[in-house]
Amino acid sequence: MYDAEVPKLWSETIEAHRHEVRDAILDSAAGLAAENGLLSVTMSQIAGRAGIGRATLYKYFPDVQAVVLAWHDRQIAAHLTRLAEARDHADGAEARLVAVLETYALVLRRRGRHHRQPHGAELAAFVHRDPRVAQAERQVHDLLRDLLTDAAAAGAVRADVPPDELAAYCAAALSAAADVPGDDAARRLAGLVLAGLRA
Amino acid sequence: MYDAEVPKLWSETIEAHRHEVRDAILDSAAGLAAENGLLSVTMSQIAGRAGIGRATLYKYFPDVQAVVLAWHDRQIAAHLTRLAEARDHADGAEARLVAVLETYALVLRRRGRHHRQPHGAELAAFVHRDPRVAQAERQVHDLLRDLLTDAAAAGAVRADVPPDELAAYCAAALSAAADVPGDDAARRLAGLVLAGLRA
Repeated sequence: MYDAEVPKLWSETIEAHRHEVRDAILDSAAGLAAENGLLSVTMSQIAGRAGIGRATLYKYFPDVQAVVLAWHDRQIAAHLTRLAEARDHADGAEARLVAVLETYALVLRRRGRHHRQPHGAELAAFVHRDPRVAQAERQVHDLLRDLLTDAAAAGAVRADVPPDELAAYCAAALSAAADVPGDDAARRLAGLVLAGLRA
Repeated sequence: MYDAEVPKLWSETIEAHRHEVRDAILDSAAGLAAENGLLSVTMSQIAGRAGIGRATLYKYFPDVQAVVLAWHDRQIAAHLTRLAEARDHADGAEARLVAVLETYALVLRRRGRHHRQPHGAELAAFVHRDPRVAQAERQVHDLLRDLLTDAAAAGAVRADVPPDELAAYCAAALSAAADVPGDDAARRLAGLVLAGLRA
């Protein structure tokens, strides 16, 4: 029993360490890209800021672009997780829809602020060629459509417009959150969207 | 009197002719770009389809890019004119707002269909670097904000959200019209947006 567990704990420790190093690499690359522009970031700079050697960095990623795409994939995954958690922590079809709309508005506002950093637009233009972006938009659309189908069945939103059209309306309208001045305005926007969905 | 009018009519005729030739050039360029891709369009092809000589074409435009940008400027101007006409043909603050939201949804649906042509995305990527695009978006925003301010004063839309935020919500939500399957769906979208604006 003891003999069997040591290797497991050891491998978990290694896995956790690798995960931490990887996170530090992604954070360093994103920070450097936002500060100095994507084209000026080097592997040496990333290793330096992450506190590892260049040789170690190359064991994780082949080049700067791969690091930045991995950072962006992590951002997308984190946003999808936030939406799923918002849904799962609410009770009832209407509350789940409200929670997801608000959370998505806040996520898009934060992303919009990131894009408005000095080199944010350049970074955004690079990562948005990533096929993961279209895939994530599809996932958000499907999440919204399922919530809207449930909410329509519960009488909380209108049933006279197909759920796919309602979901497209929600996603498009919430994109305005990228430019709102604060979290309160993002929540007001979610309120407008919700009012549009009412029967 | 007669002597004075002849030159005026003559100059008007020339002006009308120049306008017609210019329109034919723009239509030809846009058609060729949509069919074969922007990069493959030549000045000779444009002249041929417009039914004029190459030398005449060069009196109007120096190169293909200039023709395509002029075509896009004409598109933008036509869209802004349609919105202004929709506003001016309706009576009362609420009717004006409804007319402009519906018209904008239909304009964006048509533009979206154009973008989905085989070479539409390439053409869109080129013309959207035109500073006129951001300027036109600002004009639409201001048009919507003024209508919303009047409609809020008339009690037709909510007054608890600043008109600038309402206008941003409208423009963002209506952008979903680019992908709707038909004009009916575009009008349903305008209806959702309007419902969100209600007090």
